[in-house]
Amino acid sequence: MRLLTYSSSNEQRLGLLTKDGSGVIDLTARLDGETNLGTLIATDGLARAAAYVDDPADHQEPDITYERLLPRPGKIFCIGVNYGGRSAEYADMTDAAYPSVFVRFPESFTGHNQQIIRPPESPQLDYEGEIVVVIGKAGRRIPIADAHDHIAGLSLGNEGTIRDWVRHAKFNVTQGKNWESSGSMGPHLVTLDELDRPVTNTTFDDLHITTHINGELRQDDRPATMKYSIAYQIHYLSTFTTLQPGDVIFTGTPTGAGARFDPPIWLEPGDVIDVSVPELGTLRNTVADEFPDGSTFTAPEPQ
Amino acid sequence: MRLLTYSSSNEQRLGLLTKDGSGVIDLTARLDGETNLGTLIATDGLARAAAYVDDPADHQEPDITYERLLPRPGKIFCIGVNYGGRSAEYADMTDAAYPSVFVRFPESFTGHNQQIIRPPESPQLDYEGEIVVVIGKAGRRIPIADAHDHIAGLSLGNEGTIRDWVRHAKFNVTQGKNWESSGSMGPHLVTLDELDRPVTNTTFDDLHITTHINGELRQDDRPATMKYSIAYQIHYLSTFTTLQPGDVIFTGTPTGAGARFDPPIWLEPGDVIDVSVPELGTLRNTVADEFPDGSTFTAPEPQ
Repeated sequence: MRLLTYSSSNEQRLGLLTKDGSGVIDLTARLDGETNLGTLIATDGLARAAAYVDDPADHQEPDITYERLLPRPGKIFCIGVNYGGRSAEYADMTDAAYPSVFVRFPESFTGHNQQIIRPPESPQLDYEGEIVVVIGKAGRRIPIADAHDHIAGLSLGNEGTIRDWVRHAKFNVTQGKNWESSGSMGPHLVTLDELDRPVTNTTFDDLHITTHINGELRQDDRPATMKYSIAYQIHYLSTFTTLQPGDVIFTGTPTGAGARFDPPIWLEPGDVIDVSVPELGTLRNTVADEFPDGSTFTAPEPQ
Repeated sequence: MRLLTYSSSNEQRLGLLTKDGSGVIDLTARLDGETNLGTLIATDGLARAAAYVDDPADHQEPDITYERLLPRPGKIFCIGVNYGGRSAEYADMTDAAYPSVFVRFPESFTGHNQQIIRPPESPQLDYEGEIVVVIGKAGRRIPIADAHDHIAGLSLGNEGTIRDWVRHAKFNVTQGKNWESSGSMGPHLVTLDELDRPVTNTTFDDLHITTHINGELRQDDRPATMKYSIAYQIHYLSTFTTLQPGDVIFTGTPTGAGARFDPPIWLEPGDVIDVSVPELGTLRNTVADEFPDGSTFTAPEPQ
């Protein structure tokens, strides 16, 4: 199944993509008005949704508006500096024994085909294409071997970043990672049966993730090069907290973000960002200025 | 007003402390079954609650069980290394121009009088007494001069930490700050009129915060020594995200956490932690082992 959150006639709904991808089946109408994908997952609703996969489409796919995949996700964890070659980008990080973990709030993400916002406080808007895990089954201290049993499905993310704000303090990147609508999540929650092969913890290794900016290839890698595999991430995070259905993990970004060019190449209004994995589709966003009339705000002075 | 979240006969309720502090007025019974303090704040419910401040108590205060002050807070921001003298504790942080900001999830906090949990993965459970701000009015890019208008009230926090997990990676302290029930929040949301003097941004400066462990004074300071004032924190955070009613800011901890002793003094089962500000009351918690039978789990191996 490929599930999505969308709006039609200004009403938020939960949908199911038809098998050929051309249409959207309205799940909200079929599931007692449920509009929240996270709630659906937490109440074993994926099994109920599956009963409708062969229904006729209620909308043509191009006619709906994609919204953020999960309207109110639970915890959103992000794993830093993880794909092959990224340690070289962050030379002083190479001796860390455990993953770098930071947090984003839902407000920092928009949906597929929506605008990613460049604020007036900084020109350093950057992209980070990622594979996103959505938790399907609660667990604490999950053994690595069982990790894939806790995944509801995968999606795509653009973990958009305001680079200079990541370095506002000596540690913790919170403020550079949480600008409103600076990132994106979607387009679909793709359940693991869609991967079309037996699911184990190594099934994810050869997913081919790319990021294109205005059609130019910038990021290109597979989770096989991750220092901390997706299964390990689930294991590690669940050591200190109970992972809950609807929780989200951004699993890291390959080399090739704009900050790594010399000089850096920041995103500008009108730029088109495509994050793709063949099995998961393409998450597309266009960059826009928050205040197209040129209004500017001054970054807060240090105190 | 002093509001609280409590349970009675295993039902979670919203309450109002009587003026003499001896009793609790059941607000859930008076406000259409509302049990969530965050929702109450977001729907202008504090004004509705105020109509009942002179009602007779429904419970004696010692008879109720305190729950986490906000059952489902929105965003929880924490400010690191902020009070006077803490830069000396973190010598390499002194040149940071902006506050260090990290995030905790609600699950990492328990309520007043509840047990704080030491997990088997680490003996390094530590306390951090803090003044907690609960946002009452939404705002983005809030000018410093207006900051206090966005505060619903203050509370107390114990920003309990698993110290060795804070240093698992080179940056980002997420994993050491999010152990389940490792911290606490409460006992009451104290609205600003209870401070009994005109509220401006400097009103908070002389609040006297102390932390006692088993009666021994360990932390003792006032926000006047903060590098980043509470007003500045609201200004800074709202630059990149919209602060919403029910969002929470842990405003920093004074010097004197257990990690700063030589050798460090970690919390142990049975220890009693009291975080106090006279105007805000005392947040008390006792430490307990997660598995009192001695079960142990091994920390995840680095991969």
